[in-house]
Amino acid sequence: MSELKKVAVIGASGYTGEELLRVLLRHPNTSIEAITSRQMAGKTLESVLGAVAKESPLVFENLSPTEVSGRADVFFLALPHGVASEFALPLLKAGKTVVDLSADFRLKDKGLYHQYYKEEHPAPDLLVESVYGLPELYRSELKTARLIACPGCYPTSTILGLAPALKKGLLKPDSIIVNSLSGISGAGKKADTLYSFCERDQNLMAYSVPSHRHIPEIEQELSGLAGEKVTISFTPHLVPLVRGMLTTTVAELRGEMDQAGWQKLYEDFYAGEAFVTVLGTDQLPETKRVIRTNHIEVAVRHDARTGRVLFFSAQDNLGKGAATQAVQAFNVRFGLDERSGLLG
Amino acid sequence: MSELKKVAVIGASGYTGEELLRVLLRHPNTSIEAITSRQMAGKTLESVLGAVAKESPLVFENLSPTEVSGRADVFFLALPHGVASEFALPLLKAGKTVVDLSADFRLKDKGLYHQYYKEEHPAPDLLVESVYGLPELYRSELKTARLIACPGCYPTSTILGLAPALKKGLLKPDSIIVNSLSGISGAGKKADTLYSFCERDQNLMAYSVPSHRHIPEIEQELSGLAGEKVTISFTPHLVPLVRGMLTTTVAELRGEMDQAGWQKLYEDFYAGEAFVTVLGTDQLPETKRVIRTNHIEVAVRHDARTGRVLFFSAQDNLGKGAATQAVQAFNVRFGLDERSGLLG
Amino acid sequence: MSELKKVAVIGASGYTGEELLRVLLRHPNTSIEAITSRQMAGKTLESVLGAVAKESPLVFENLSPTEVSGRADVFFLALPHGVASEFALPLLKAGKTVVDLSADFRLKDKGLYHQYYKEEHPAPDLLVESVYGLPELYRSELKTARLIACPGCYPTSTILGLAPALKKGLLKPDSIIVNSLSGISGAGKKADTLYSFCERDQNLMAYSVPSHRHIPEIEQELSGLAGEKVTISFTPHLVPLVRGMLTTTVAELRGEMDQAGWQKLYEDFYAGEAFVTVLGTDQLPETKRVIRTNHIEVAVRHDARTGRVLFFSAQDNLGKGAATQAVQAFNVRFGLDERSGLLG
Amino acid sequence: MSELKKVAVIGASGYTGEELLRVLLRHPNTSIEAITSRQMAGKTLESVLGAVAKESPLVFENLSPTEVSGRADVFFLALPHGVASEFALPLLKAGKTVVDLSADFRLKDKGLYHQYYKEEHPAPDLLVESVYGLPELYRSELKTARLIACPGCYPTSTILGLAPALKKGLLKPDSIIVNSLSGISGAGKKADTLYSFCERDQNLMAYSVPSHRHIPEIEQELSGLAGEKVTISFTPHLVPLVRGMLTTTVAELRGEMDQAGWQKLYEDFYAGEAFVTVLGTDQLPETKRVIRTNHIEVAVRHDARTGRVLFFSAQDNLGKGAATQAVQAFNVRFGLDERSGLLG
Repeated sequence: MSELKKVAVIGASGYTGEELLRVLLRHPNTSIEAITSRQMAGKTLESVLGAVAKESPLVFENLSPTEVSGRADVFFLALPHGVASEFALPLLKAGKTVVDLSADFRLKDKGLYHQYYKEEHPAPDLLVESVYGLPELYRSELKTARLIACPGCYPTSTILGLAPALKKGLLKPDSIIVNSLSGISGAGKKADTLYSFCERDQNLMAYSVPSHRHIPEIEQELSGLAGEKVTISFTPHLVPLVRGMLTTTVAELRGEMDQAGWQKLYEDFYAGEAFVTVLGTDQLPETKRVIRTNHIEVAVRHDARTGRVLFFSAQDNLGKGAATQAVQAFNVRFGLDERSGLLG
Repeated sequence: MSELKKVAVIGASGYTGEELLRVLLRHPNTSIEAITSRQMAGKTLESVLGAVAKESPLVFENLSPTEVSGRADVFFLALPHGVASEFALPLLKAGKTVVDLSADFRLKDKGLYHQYYKEEHPAPDLLVESVYGLPELYRSELKTARLIACPGCYPTSTILGLAPALKKGLLKPDSIIVNSLSGISGAGKKADTLYSFCERDQNLMAYSVPSHRHIPEIEQELSGLAGEKVTISFTPHLVPLVRGMLTTTVAELRGEMDQAGWQKLYEDFYAGEAFVTVLGTDQLPETKRVIRTNHIEVAVRHDARTGRVLFFSAQDNLGKGAATQAVQAFNVRFGLDERSGLLG
Repeated sequence: MSELKKVAVIGASGYTGEELLRVLLRHPNTSIEAITSRQMAGKTLESVLGAVAKESPLVFENLSPTEVSGRADVFFLALPHGVASEFALPLLKAGKTVVDLSADFRLKDKGLYHQYYKEEHPAPDLLVESVYGLPELYRSELKTARLIACPGCYPTSTILGLAPALKKGLLKPDSIIVNSLSGISGAGKKADTLYSFCERDQNLMAYSVPSHRHIPEIEQELSGLAGEKVTISFTPHLVPLVRGMLTTTVAELRGEMDQAGWQKLYEDFYAGEAFVTVLGTDQLPETKRVIRTNHIEVAVRHDARTGRVLFFSAQDNLGKGAATQAVQAFNVRFGLDERSGLLG
Repeated sequence: MSELKKVAVIGASGYTGEELLRVLLRHPNTSIEAITSRQMAGKTLESVLGAVAKESPLVFENLSPTEVSGRADVFFLALPHGVASEFALPLLKAGKTVVDLSADFRLKDKGLYHQYYKEEHPAPDLLVESVYGLPELYRSELKTARLIACPGCYPTSTILGLAPALKKGLLKPDSIIVNSLSGISGAGKKADTLYSFCERDQNLMAYSVPSHRHIPEIEQELSGLAGEKVTISFTPHLVPLVRGMLTTTVAELRGEMDQAGWQKLYEDFYAGEAFVTVLGTDQLPETKRVIRTNHIEVAVRHDARTGRVLFFSAQDNLGKGAATQAVQAFNVRFGLDERSGLLG
């Protein structure tokens, strides 16, 4: 592809926005035409990202949807839920492609949106149209998507950990217990003592128990894979590292399958995937190996003693769990090498 | 009590031994008569603990069971499993009281010991006699114990998190999924790159999947509480903090119980306990608040949506999970105020 | 002493206030009669400190100086500078003893106060009267002090590192270069992204260069020790740990002194001090050994190659650098064992 | 350049070797022909680096200099000092280009080598011939070098922080006090409790006082810049982060220069440098912004009060302080874009 795709990043001042910009700056097929932020308006990208942006002339602007619309063809929205749709609607109307990293278009059911986000959804039709930005599962749908709803970090790690098992119908759909450990950057860049160094270092805690907002999104996708209603228990935890997510899932086996069978199932399912690595039985996923990449490590272990199966996945919550995955979806959308800009 | 109890700490150079010494140094009812270590023999306690021991004349010695036997009345064993019994047997024979922090006398079933520790148990009779050093559950038995088998950190946090529920028969005994997060000090003081700063900081991983050695000990105690066979799935994780353990357990409810009922059950069960704090519904356990103490925070949450119950507990893996709990058991054994030396 | 001293802690909700309360709760000679905080008014001490305060009935109150005055005899002020004097003045007028942890009464020169704190000092007479709360240097003055101005963490570590050398006139007074590394808790409990986990973890930076507010306080005390004007370069750094401070000072030797001489000078100077440990030549100070204590480790090294001397000191910035040192000064003031409540 | 340069990495299993491989894997102008390691022989690169190497067929081999010599044209040596020259000598004799990351060829004076490394230098002639691999100062010499002696992390950060000042003769050559803070990865991948998570987290300490092995290398380069003998005091510290180095240097001004003058001097000196960023007076260097890059941030501050000047530099100790700088030197050597492979 000789031509550069013109992109803009809207709401670029949070951790996800920063990571997105770091990746897009080096992406061989994009030209960043605008970066917007209310808070950072007037500041150079270099003042935020540091020397990695020293050759970039980009400056944050405070632009409305109308003002920014003409500047690019593809818009990455790194905005809070609720705000994202305020940009997505006019941009789509103007014929643009939208890659949304918020929760606004992930749920198919407007009722669930209302229940978990306490607001009426502003554009229920788009819930139907949007494509879930998980390339490993929605590659063909992504190729023509106008609106890509990128999954968050918890859904990505849970879904990719379970997909092969559920697709084969090998798990009891009401037996799935998910525990997730998240680096603190998952909470965003907030001036809140809750996320201060002194409160989070040397500390562990669960939160949003038992009804984290990502549960319906996870269950929607797991149910789609299983072809039946899946109900999970999901417990997120804050652990003292900046980036990284480890998800441990335990479920009851339906039917029979030994470790060798599980291993083969997972390796076959993800064969050819550039960013999913199925580990052998000698290793378990570690976040260290995937930090600052779009990779996710997955492992499966059969526990003959209990008749349960354990699933593990490790990713960077800002990488495969957010920014780089959005770029991967963008690559798929525009027929680029899926790895373009993502192997640095 | 006007008289000081003469104690010795055997194998005092690891993290548990250090913590034990830190506590015993300030304990108003003990006199430390000997501290032993092969590695540290000849070094002063101050050179290891630093200034907190600057007023102590103690020096590490390399002493055999016979050599140390006459020096004290109570022996804390902070030794690896297998080695502990080499000290416990002659010391018991000499009429001493033994508080063992290793795994040697925790299991009642010598077959399980053999299966998980790959050796014949050297003194099966003592497995029967030993008292499990969890004061909240074995207070009366501890009062006359000759041999106290202190629980490790994973069992303590799991058992205290589930005890009220299991005792009431409120959980399906084969539905219990335990996830535990441990600070790195749980691995001991080892010259192994696996536990180096660069490998563990900014990193998360599960390990010993699916058959961690503490599983039979946990199941033994949970089964005892439930009055029926309990089988758990247990997954331990290493997370980047020095001290602290958070355990999250999910189980299926048997019968009916709402959040208020759970809250009352737990508060009643632990009423009067100096070291167990049942949190209200506005807080979840955090390790930060219990580090360097003998306290454990416990919380229970009913999830009406899934019919499951979630249990959380936070403790210091070297505190309530090891050294201070051993001192608490010692206090109970000798009729001292259970909090003696443990409120510092 | 059979009678308990009645104390109050004003502004008790920051990290220093918390640490002070943790220590005073176990202090055998104090009775905490009031704890005040605007923010935390109505909350129990247990809700802030966790289980270590579970046996305490204390509740934070929002009290004016007049309201709190009758409640206690000794008042610890853990307030921001400027606010502290608003409490100190009326409390002193009411005949109370004030132990101030702020910067309000540390400088003897009201001009310097104005220059560094940008305000006229409200009570210059008290600047003259206040006693600097560093027991190792002002023990006799503290015994009758009405107003104790406790030094901050940077001054404590710098001054105690240099005192023996300066008192002997062994350093060129304009050659002293101080570099200090501080744990993040030194910045207080602030809702500011600057102190968030994600900004401070895996990060190092110097700050307040070249004119940190503690410089005049440090120079005042060093000049007093030297009997001549001392001018220092002082550079503070934020490093990713919660608690701890390491200060490295380099200065040019005046006269002659070899390593053995330095060692003897320091050991003699601090002989008998309960909380200052002079390390031998085989060790350098480490914060790990003094965290959560009132201890400070000090070491001195002669560098024959350059003719300079290096001084190192390690302490807990919230301990010897703040809260526990205030308690030590209180102990001295009231004729208690200087170690009372501080060996836990 | 259409042709790929054939490179090999010798001793590739440490942190520097790993980082080098991570960068070379994505370098558009290199083909990695061999990676050697005694310890890791037989293991795939993927098993060490994780998924970032999943498309690479590379396997570690245990190869002698003779065995590896024919495999490539350029050899990166990531070996301990002493061992590096055992490879460098035969490889140079075979006409290869050697980029050595060890200390073996950095010192020009074989006497100093002997004094600090306790061994006779095996090839003093090469000390004379080798080019110091700091592209900002030795760019033209590097273009024809057969043997590049890459500076370590402490020298790089100290030298680049001081170069403009010393070159102008603006500092008193015996007044330079350097304090450096290093991430733990600087100690290498060693099975030593000294570098364990539990000993280094929440801990600060200075080490190798007052005679760190890098002092002669730093003084050699600073003296060269100044055109006169420079003697420094240098104190390295271990601080709890994996990667990153912050160096703070204080020196006495010779002559006159105000902040604006310093600022201009530094900006002019480093104008056009891709990897050195001179910060303005509103910011100080932070390691966070340069981690996993080849960038170094530099700042200078005049302290009118003391007549001293402060210099700050922040880099990644494994990046600009080691692996990526070696690649930068390689790029210069072979006439590539200096940024090739280094902007990822």
